[in-house]
Amino acid sequence: MSLWGGATILLASKSPRRRQLVEMLGIPFRIVDVEVEETLATPVEASLVAQTLAQLKADGYDKALLHNEILLAADTTVVLGNEVLGKPNTRDEAFAMLSELSGRSHEVYTGVCLKSARQTIVFSECTKVFFRDLAPDAISYYINNYKPMDKAGAYGIQEWIGIFGVERIEGCYYNVMGLPVPRICRELEGMG
Amino acid sequence: MSLWGGATILLASKSPRRRQLVEMLGIPFRIVDVEVEETLATPVEASLVAQTLAQLKADGYDKALLHNEILLAADTTVVLGNEVLGKPNTRDEAFAMLSELSGRSHEVYTGVCLKSARQTIVFSECTKVFFRDLAPDAISYYINNYKPMDKAGAYGIQEWIGIFGVERIEGCYYNVMGLPVPRICRELEGMG
Repeated sequence: MSLWGGATILLASKSPRRRQLVEMLGIPFRIVDVEVEETLATPVEASLVAQTLAQLKADGYDKALLHNEILLAADTTVVLGNEVLGKPNTRDEAFAMLSELSGRSHEVYTGVCLKSARQTIVFSECTKVFFRDLAPDAISYYINNYKPMDKAGAYGIQEWIGIFGVERIEGCYYNVMGLPVPRICRELEGMG
Repeated sequence: MSLWGGATILLASKSPRRRQLVEMLGIPFRIVDVEVEETLATPVEASLVAQTLAQLKADGYDKALLHNEILLAADTTVVLGNEVLGKPNTRDEAFAMLSELSGRSHEVYTGVCLKSARQTIVFSECTKVFFRDLAPDAISYYINNYKPMDKAGAYGIQEWIGIFGVERIEGCYYNVMGLPVPRICRELEGMG
């Protein structure tokens, strides 16, 4: 697929979900390594954390971009009320997070930074996610059989818990997986 | 997983997407064959076509249900305005359908009939799907590389066109794939 005049995406992310989504899109890409301390120097609103971190990651790429290269950095946060839920450190933390998400809605923000030799675009997409009531049994089943530990908010929407428990979303599904791909395509088309 | 007291689902559907979703849910199931003429004797509103056809499919199962069996029949329709879009018969029809869906929103209804020895439940879920503008190039690319022909509305949201073009949904994602699984789980829990 070459809808974008043959540009190559440099994906600054270790997330296997992001890699999978870019692969499915079928455009040329490669993974680049960016070492960044993922902490904010000054506090920002919960809704802005993801795009601030995405920009930080992009800034961590220290090589010059060639004319046909576009750097893509992203960060995903789960926001419940005004609280940002990160990745759980323990199974107990994962259990507590999923218990908090049960029976209510939360927001998932994926911030994206697209950078070419000529310009930088930063934005974020928000998807509202509605979990139905999750019984403790169901939460334990998920934690024991899937991988909540490497995921913000302790869940992957494309895993069992999403199919079992996410009754409704408002926004982009792929944004919850970690990349708002249709929006990214639109921005790439705009970058020409 | 045995959150439903060990009931076995009899899935009256040939759809590989439905099979995949029930497999991911991890409950015991088997596919059963139901031969039904998928046409309505009397016209019904576009929003009711899916659940009427789901009931028709369930009624086509002619064996007695055992106490631990639950029959699951489903039908998915794509509704644009008041028009029901079926499966395209030709690639030209697929192209015309996707051109119609481009740059606007439509509704996807999946009707479900759950039947045990004691009761029958019929319902449908509606998900609103927003396509961004799809260039003719992108539509052709999708039709040439994927399988629009066996799908109502000529697209699969989990395929390239969904990742490239569906900027937003309102409702259940899995409903668009062919089964509103979280709602089905909730109804199964109610059936005890």
